[in-house]
Amino acid sequence: MTEIKRLSTADSDYQARIADLLAWESVSDDRVQQTVAEIIREVRARGDAALIDYTSRFDRWTPASAADLELPKARLEAAWGKIPAAQRAALEKAAERIRAYAEHQKTSGWSYREPDGTLLGQQVTPLDRAGLYVPGGKAAYPSSVLMNAIPAKVAGVAELIMVVPTPDGELNELVLAAAHVSGVDRAFAIGGAQAVAALAYGTESIPGVDKVVGPGNIYVATAKRAVFGQVGIDMVAGPSEILVVCDGGTDPDWIAMDLFSQAEHDEDAQSILVSWDAGFLDRVAASIDKLLPTMERQEIISAALRARGALIQARDLDDAIDVANFIAPEHLELSVEDPEAIVGRIRHAGAIFMGRYTAEALGDYCAGPNHVLPTSRTARFSSPLGVYDFQKRSSLIMASRAGSAELSKTASVLARGEGLTAHARSAEYRGEGAE
Amino acid sequence: MTEIKRLSTADSDYQARIADLLAWESVSDDRVQQTVAEIIREVRARGDAALIDYTSRFDRWTPASAADLELPKARLEAAWGKIPAAQRAALEKAAERIRAYAEHQKTSGWSYREPDGTLLGQQVTPLDRAGLYVPGGKAAYPSSVLMNAIPAKVAGVAELIMVVPTPDGELNELVLAAAHVSGVDRAFAIGGAQAVAALAYGTESIPGVDKVVGPGNIYVATAKRAVFGQVGIDMVAGPSEILVVCDGGTDPDWIAMDLFSQAEHDEDAQSILVSWDAGFLDRVAASIDKLLPTMERQEIISAALRARGALIQARDLDDAIDVANFIAPEHLELSVEDPEAIVGRIRHAGAIFMGRYTAEALGDYCAGPNHVLPTSRTARFSSPLGVYDFQKRSSLIMASRAGSAELSKTASVLARGEGLTAHARSAEYRGEGAE
Repeated sequence: MTEIKRLSTADSDYQARIADLLAWESVSDDRVQQTVAEIIREVRARGDAALIDYTSRFDRWTPASAADLELPKARLEAAWGKIPAAQRAALEKAAERIRAYAEHQKTSGWSYREPDGTLLGQQVTPLDRAGLYVPGGKAAYPSSVLMNAIPAKVAGVAELIMVVPTPDGELNELVLAAAHVSGVDRAFAIGGAQAVAALAYGTESIPGVDKVVGPGNIYVATAKRAVFGQVGIDMVAGPSEILVVCDGGTDPDWIAMDLFSQAEHDEDAQSILVSWDAGFLDRVAASIDKLLPTMERQEIISAALRARGALIQARDLDDAIDVANFIAPEHLELSVEDPEAIVGRIRHAGAIFMGRYTAEALGDYCAGPNHVLPTSRTARFSSPLGVYDFQKRSSLIMASRAGSAELSKTASVLARGEGLTAHARSAEYRGEGAE
Repeated sequence: MTEIKRLSTADSDYQARIADLLAWESVSDDRVQQTVAEIIREVRARGDAALIDYTSRFDRWTPASAADLELPKARLEAAWGKIPAAQRAALEKAAERIRAYAEHQKTSGWSYREPDGTLLGQQVTPLDRAGLYVPGGKAAYPSSVLMNAIPAKVAGVAELIMVVPTPDGELNELVLAAAHVSGVDRAFAIGGAQAVAALAYGTESIPGVDKVVGPGNIYVATAKRAVFGQVGIDMVAGPSEILVVCDGGTDPDWIAMDLFSQAEHDEDAQSILVSWDAGFLDRVAASIDKLLPTMERQEIISAALRARGALIQARDLDDAIDVANFIAPEHLELSVEDPEAIVGRIRHAGAIFMGRYTAEALGDYCAGPNHVLPTSRTARFSSPLGVYDFQKRSSLIMASRAGSAELSKTASVLARGEGLTAHARSAEYRGEGAE
């Protein structure tokens, strides 16, 4: 029997136990910090030469020259031709749906005029260049290429640069094919903190970008934090999580498999089920025991469920919703009869999967919304990756003569209240000039 | 004569000189880092008791109990009644305009249904609680209270908590009055890294929030970086900057004063003018020499102009626009005859002040758009503070039975391609269930 914790919101120590269950602090120790700081210094100082050295050291192949680091567009296209037709069709279908959803997220500028002719507004522009980090080796996920690249291209980013390490020189055809179908503009076979540094500062061969997105190991995450400010970054993600809220009416095998689908990512992944039907919690526990031995990734799933999984008994629906809002999960399944009746009461969640037929896995690949989502309760203040992450805004102010004269009076009073007389006089000039 | 650098885009070393001029790296040294880390540890461990100790040590007054740390709403209202009527009217006018502009930034959710009944969408919700840091002492700016607080309230943040240090127990009536008119819900007389830690983790008396915004010194900035992840933060700002693009037709005294208005903030502030009219650059230089001796903050202005100011000669309008896009300035004045004809070519800027009558100072106080803007070239990838910083999004997916059956095929192919069979089986269950 897999030991998965059982909690009840009625327990006197529930608050302490749930806090304990959710506790997660990513630690990048001093050694990692120092290694990353040195790699960044080297790449800034020596450019391509440093990239060649690190690739040789960490990825165990030695580029003859910096030109060898680039994966030409023809190579991405070749990968597209090489993968099985079923995978090509699936990637195409997924890309199309992700693109269609992303189109709804595009925002455009606006402005309004006041009676005196003053114009106020907001101009929206895409980033010039974005960089997409894609992990190599075992954790190379083509779906992640689609999810990071497509919103950038929909936003209008002129140049999207992908970096992907190729340990021992090995290329992942599915990843290259995904890059092809996503519209990646240039790709380079580099990885680790050195790739992040190259994207942030540029080298002779790698163009510097304005923002770096995409998942990576602790070195990549630490490097992203370090270059933040020089460039933008997306969130540094914690382990993946799912919270299933179920009324007891969904097949317990389905729910068990949904919990597994999160737990199979890694031992730190978190799978939680909350229901007010105690019998249902028992049935899901039985399904877990029955199905676990049939899973390819049984050991990882079992370790994750033991360490960070839970079945939570709530008092009722309202109580379950409170649990969901407290956890603010990355993925939330509302596996209930009428999800539309309650979705408006969910205040914090990365993505909400509504109804018994919406397996979270559909969202991971092809439903349309992004699978890059806020983890570790950060849905309290952050959003899924989206087109808006590749657009930015500029405020617009155009004061008419009359408007300027009027505004300058208010500005002058407040500026003098703050002791900033150059501000006041700069405003007053326009007031006088308009009279 | 004030020595302000003269550059020309035609100079062979222009790229190196402009890069040198813009170079800015905020350094929080190891000592600051360690002090902040210890303060955060103490506040997490000892809560209110630590806040009382630090207030006593750093602000030189000793609260009798934690209750003394709160500034009751009645105290904010009293400040509102106490300030001169002209300031009250100016704050009210500014607040009203900032609110009206912010209302345009509110976004709401959307959804669409596909032919098979599958629903996709995005739900938009406000943060539950936000924390606003307001510096005390000399740099206490009431305008900054309005600019940070009003977008949060417009977004629908249920509880907005302000913290403001009161060195030697001294309260700034204008700041409290601004908090009153902005709708701040609770205020506490605490500051420094300890206030940021209290907002991030909560204490017995200070409610933990979901995001911390607002300016502060190096300790505050370092603390914000440290708690990022536990809570959201706004950008950590660098020195303030202005770039004026002028066609030579604006009164040179006005432009000189606009440059001063930025330079008077502090010695690191950056004021740059670019024009293709060499004679105009000379006339502004003459205005600078003429007006500087009349300025209250002459020494700061002079130091800032010497260290980081510049007059740049461009070849023509197109060249000047290239300069602006490279600098990606926090504040951009387009002091030209027809700004609307060129604003669409500005790709990167925090706020754009269009036309001869739009002094940047109007935007600092009362035009409506936010004065919290991306500095140090970060306008390449980030935006003014706005309502969107206090809202977040959740993706919505509700697959119909038919939709689920269809999507599960694609998800299954891609999941198996990634070796994630629990994902595949979770999707497949729904496909089978629908048949």
